[in-house]
Amino acid sequence: MSAAPDSRYAVLFEPLEIGPRELPNRFFQVPYLPGFTASGRPRVNAAHRAVKAEGGWGAVCTEWCMVAPDADPAPEQASTLLDDADERNLASWCAQVQAHGALAGIELAHDGANAGGESSRWPAVAPSQLRSDAWLFSEATPKEMERADIERIQAAWAAAAARAVRAGFDIVYVYGAASMLPMQFLSPFTNKRTDGYGGSFENRARFWLETLEAVRGAVAGRAVVAARIGVDQLGPSGLGVEEVSRLVGLADPLVDLWDVNVGGLANSDMDLTPSRVFEEGYSLQWTTRIKAATRKPLVTVGRLTNADLMADLVRQGKVDIIGAARPSIADPFLPAKVRAGRFEDIRECIGSNHCALKATTGHLACSQNATAGEEHRRGWHPERFPRLADTSPPVAVIGAGPAGLECAKVLGRRGMELVHMVDAEREMGGHLGWFGRLPGFQPWLRLVDYRRTQIEKLPGVTFVPGTRLEVEDVLDYGASIVVCATGSRWSADGINLLTHAPIPGAGAGLAHVLTPEQIVVEGKRPPGPEVVIYDCEGYLTGLGIAQFLQREGCRPTIVTPVHEAGAHAFHSGEGPVMRREVHAAGGAFRHGLRLVGIEPGGARCEDEFGGAVEIDADAVVLVTQRLSEDRLYRDLLADPDRLAAAGIEAVYRAGDCVAPRLLPDAIFDGHRLAMEIDGPDPATPQPLRRDDEEPPTYPDGPGAGIGREALGLGTAG
Amino acid sequence: MSAAPDSRYAVLFEPLEIGPRELPNRFFQVPYLPGFTASGRPRVNAAHRAVKAEGGWGAVCTEWCMVAPDADPAPEQASTLLDDADERNLASWCAQVQAHGALAGIELAHDGANAGGESSRWPAVAPSQLRSDAWLFSEATPKEMERADIERIQAAWAAAAARAVRAGFDIVYVYGAASMLPMQFLSPFTNKRTDGYGGSFENRARFWLETLEAVRGAVAGRAVVAARIGVDQLGPSGLGVEEVSRLVGLADPLVDLWDVNVGGLANSDMDLTPSRVFEEGYSLQWTTRIKAATRKPLVTVGRLTNADLMADLVRQGKVDIIGAARPSIADPFLPAKVRAGRFEDIRECIGSNHCALKATTGHLACSQNATAGEEHRRGWHPERFPRLADTSPPVAVIGAGPAGLECAKVLGRRGMELVHMVDAEREMGGHLGWFGRLPGFQPWLRLVDYRRTQIEKLPGVTFVPGTRLEVEDVLDYGASIVVCATGSRWSADGINLLTHAPIPGAGAGLAHVLTPEQIVVEGKRPPGPEVVIYDCEGYLTGLGIAQFLQREGCRPTIVTPVHEAGAHAFHSGEGPVMRREVHAAGGAFRHGLRLVGIEPGGARCEDEFGGAVEIDADAVVLVTQRLSEDRLYRDLLADPDRLAAAGIEAVYRAGDCVAPRLLPDAIFDGHRLAMEIDGPDPATPQPLRRDDEEPPTYPDGPGAGIGREALGLGTAG
Repeated sequence: MSAAPDSRYAVLFEPLEIGPRELPNRFFQVPYLPGFTASGRPRVNAAHRAVKAEGGWGAVCTEWCMVAPDADPAPEQASTLLDDADERNLASWCAQVQAHGALAGIELAHDGANAGGESSRWPAVAPSQLRSDAWLFSEATPKEMERADIERIQAAWAAAAARAVRAGFDIVYVYGAASMLPMQFLSPFTNKRTDGYGGSFENRARFWLETLEAVRGAVAGRAVVAARIGVDQLGPSGLGVEEVSRLVGLADPLVDLWDVNVGGLANSDMDLTPSRVFEEGYSLQWTTRIKAATRKPLVTVGRLTNADLMADLVRQGKVDIIGAARPSIADPFLPAKVRAGRFEDIRECIGSNHCALKATTGHLACSQNATAGEEHRRGWHPERFPRLADTSPPVAVIGAGPAGLECAKVLGRRGMELVHMVDAEREMGGHLGWFGRLPGFQPWLRLVDYRRTQIEKLPGVTFVPGTRLEVEDVLDYGASIVVCATGSRWSADGINLLTHAPIPGAGAGLAHVLTPEQIVVEGKRPPGPEVVIYDCEGYLTGLGIAQFLQREGCRPTIVTPVHEAGAHAFHSGEGPVMRREVHAAGGAFRHGLRLVGIEPGGARCEDEFGGAVEIDADAVVLVTQRLSEDRLYRDLLADPDRLAAAGIEAVYRAGDCVAPRLLPDAIFDGHRLAMEIDGPDPATPQPLRRDDEEPPTYPDGPGAGIGREALGLGTAG
Repeated sequence: MSAAPDSRYAVLFEPLEIGPRELPNRFFQVPYLPGFTASGRPRVNAAHRAVKAEGGWGAVCTEWCMVAPDADPAPEQASTLLDDADERNLASWCAQVQAHGALAGIELAHDGANAGGESSRWPAVAPSQLRSDAWLFSEATPKEMERADIERIQAAWAAAAARAVRAGFDIVYVYGAASMLPMQFLSPFTNKRTDGYGGSFENRARFWLETLEAVRGAVAGRAVVAARIGVDQLGPSGLGVEEVSRLVGLADPLVDLWDVNVGGLANSDMDLTPSRVFEEGYSLQWTTRIKAATRKPLVTVGRLTNADLMADLVRQGKVDIIGAARPSIADPFLPAKVRAGRFEDIRECIGSNHCALKATTGHLACSQNATAGEEHRRGWHPERFPRLADTSPPVAVIGAGPAGLECAKVLGRRGMELVHMVDAEREMGGHLGWFGRLPGFQPWLRLVDYRRTQIEKLPGVTFVPGTRLEVEDVLDYGASIVVCATGSRWSADGINLLTHAPIPGAGAGLAHVLTPEQIVVEGKRPPGPEVVIYDCEGYLTGLGIAQFLQREGCRPTIVTPVHEAGAHAFHSGEGPVMRREVHAAGGAFRHGLRLVGIEPGGARCEDEFGGAVEIDADAVVLVTQRLSEDRLYRDLLADPDRLAAAGIEAVYRAGDCVAPRLLPDAIFDGHRLAMEIDGPDPATPQPLRRDDEEPPTYPDGPGAGIGREALGLGTAG
């Protein structure tokens, strides 16, 4: 049996009756799309979700699980529950989640007008023939639903619900959030019907109510019926808390559990709430207001990672259950750690939304948790680490940035006895040390804080600050394994993806040409207030530097060769909100321009058609490409004989020093090297386990004090 | 045995020795990415390729097949040949293609700096640490390859080649086109190395030569070694025909077959060559020049559909083999039809590149061939059609646009004896009738030409022109099945996806507000030369109307709420080239603006941040959303008793009349209805066969005279 939690948090561990089931505690993993689906890659998905159940989440849900072929969000990857094969895959998923005592939930959904139909080739259907305002998904115009379509989809929802019950699910959803079909019926923005499903509130609510009735009938008391709903669409939909509350009131007898968030698909940044702009719990101002409309339990989200806030919310009756997507990715063991009072061991979500970005571009990744998405295919576990057979070789990790921190931490968790993490700076953090000083990026420093805490607990790992190691120093250091994690720097001469060459007029020593590090680390400032920032990165650095300089009175113009500044950050929900902030502070944008030359008074650019565009500016900041700081690594490898003479058996590298990428990639790279350092070729990742291969066996023993027993968890049942 | 082809085309049917194999004729399906892969969805892929072998292509190749995990182009979907499971899947693929007598080719590839690594999480690797100029694929900076990386990837290529031979492939590729890794080494734009793999031409060619040697060694005479190469990169790469010819000369002893195209990944529109701008065979001006450098057979592409041109090219020795991707999708039986002299039965590729667009957004689709990609999952065959059990019910297809044409054609091919296709216009074509009059869209009319020819041959199908049917007319017509294929029209009041409402100041009767149909069909003209075109469609209509008006002296400004006009046509390679043309003719673009009001003198817009922008204009053309012309369909269904009294047993609809979508969707929809009209619920598509289900059995008998025997094909061997 597990120990009782601290009384301050006991409320989070009280079971709760929801419909015919008992939720074992108040931690609830709400749905998110990980880029792999329960129906398409069942083992990758099940392992990823099951580890959350192991970590103490009382309920774990699937991603969107579409009930009909015309709910086809391709190229977004959602699950389906259409046939026997889907049911088999999901039954296995269910069993793996329930094995740890969690309830298993399935997010049955239909996306209506937002469907692209690009995979199924069915036309999208919608209450009215109006294109989705979530431009991302489709260029197609939907079919206005006939009565037969309404009946068909409600019957499909009920059939999927019956399959879900057969597959073993405890919680069956009617998913209406994210501007899904039920919300499209409810909103006068998308519903212009003149029949019994449009017009009055009662008519617009009909689809919701009938679908809930159909699902309730199919479930027949054998599972919880839940509904997910956006309580304020915050956009042109015309639906605010008042009208949604009215629906909740009407539907309350049909629903065992309300799961609420905020915003619609076209303004999903209000649901994604990147920490860059939004504080923890930002959306609670809307979501908690729904509580008055229902007598059923309420779960809501808000990037909640603070256990005190969570406990207050439940104790004060604002919500009944703490929902989480991102915090559960960052730390699948968050509930167990709260229970055990090990708050300092929680990997708090940093709100960077790399998970959403990476899931959209290929496969989930998390900047805090390198094991997310890798549970099956790499056999990684967030808390349990295989002990090294030989823990004696002394290791020097050079660089205490994200990759070095993670590598040293995992080496320590694997029992390595003598790991020195050496950095030229006095503080850990590497490039995050300066990046975290850009306005609003402070939450990202949780990456460093968590690892600093862990490393301080690990007897085998020592941080050696303020020590710059050159080749001779490394040779003399006494390490037998050297890991270079020396990071990267921004090109000072404007090397960029379009020309692969310096930009004429650029140069490290010029007063009117600057790099991000020169500004934030070295304190260099533009000679006047008018600054052109050339964003060839396409992510957040250009926007962040703009805000940094705006605080000092500069007037930046962000020039991009593509269609918008921070284009890649569209996927993380940060692009639009950061552009709004830069604009609100007086910043300007010039899109579709290539910077072709720099002069003391300005920037020469070319548009898409080769036309010349001059922009007056006191200075130009180059955010073009990063270059690996790999000199030490290369110099060490240059003379194998000297390495051998110094007793150095292996030199590896990790993170930006290999290839400058996004933050979760650096964390991943350090983790991977430490996990595979005793493998056949540590420099090269091991092959991935395929989805149709047998699942891995995780290491049994606890890691350095954060294993299952220490967490107060029982044995997997 | 098959009959001899006409002597004019005999040269296309001469076998050719390539290395250790004999190519049975000169038709060669080169690689393309269909959105489903041979390793991921083996049966969907194999069925799609095998039907080409059945249709007479002498060689059929896979899509990109990656040799190492760091060649990960996600979110693009490529195959892999990394392990036993990949090998098994590909062996099955191979057997299905070879069963029809074709050679099977595999496109072993590594995309180097273009890899995103978003699925595998390996960093991209490249000759030098320079980001890919194909911005689409990655925001990551690659790792500069170490010597060990070069050796690893060459060994992986050789290992994959050995697996390919074991799997049964006849042709094993080193794929270097599309700016893949071998080209990245060859080009001084991407290769800044100072070791033995960079600098001089010989050094830059080393990776190509060593890789070819390694593959040749692994293949060991058991298969053809082929190389695909871009003969002119046409961009900043610095590689033109001269330098590529030099490589071809050097590598010639290592290569059995050269497969050449033009352009790199960042300017792939020069390889995609949409018919909108480029004529058939446009790229031959570069590709045929490589012939002088080699003594080996040469295959090249150029959207070639004209058999006379093909025969001339081979006869004149400009190329040895006719390569095709798109023409083989549009008509898998193109070779068989040339052989049989049935030129009028060839579905000529229209060069719309819907295939590329649809493959990128979800699943291959072709505007000419509705069966492309549906061979396994729907059991459709491009030439063989299941005869209806009851061919007697009279059918009225109302509307002779894309959906109606395809539906009537397939009903006729299924043996229906009395199909009337009725249209208010005198010519077939529906909306293509006017769309095809926009500058450069004439090749799209091949869609109509092909179907007109087929329908004229079908005894059961009659075209009734110039007849507008109202409800009473339909009731009196004598049909027992009615198919409404009445198309769609552009909203005259500016209904759009952003507001779902009319645009203030818009209206059908105003002189200064126009729709595409008013301009092209009705001859309405703006009252002055300055015209704002509001492109909310995001595809080609706004650009096409701009060019139409430019020819009459108008000066259009295309306003778009997103980042560029014709944004969705990026995937078809048409967006950039059409914008260049509009710009060259004096057109202007204003991106990121919403049209919020129209007045006689101009357009009121708002930018991303809500700022007001006024644009003076004599008129505004609204390209916002199409609306289904479904009045007849609805009116017919409104009174079931009258339908019954008139002997009408069923009323269906197809194409834009259901939901306005892209051209291939309309063709697909008409095809599907005709294929499923004897199914349990013809209005609703049947479920898809899953990839792990057994393949379908195609109907055995020939269709209306275009079956296998008539094509001069032998029995599958």
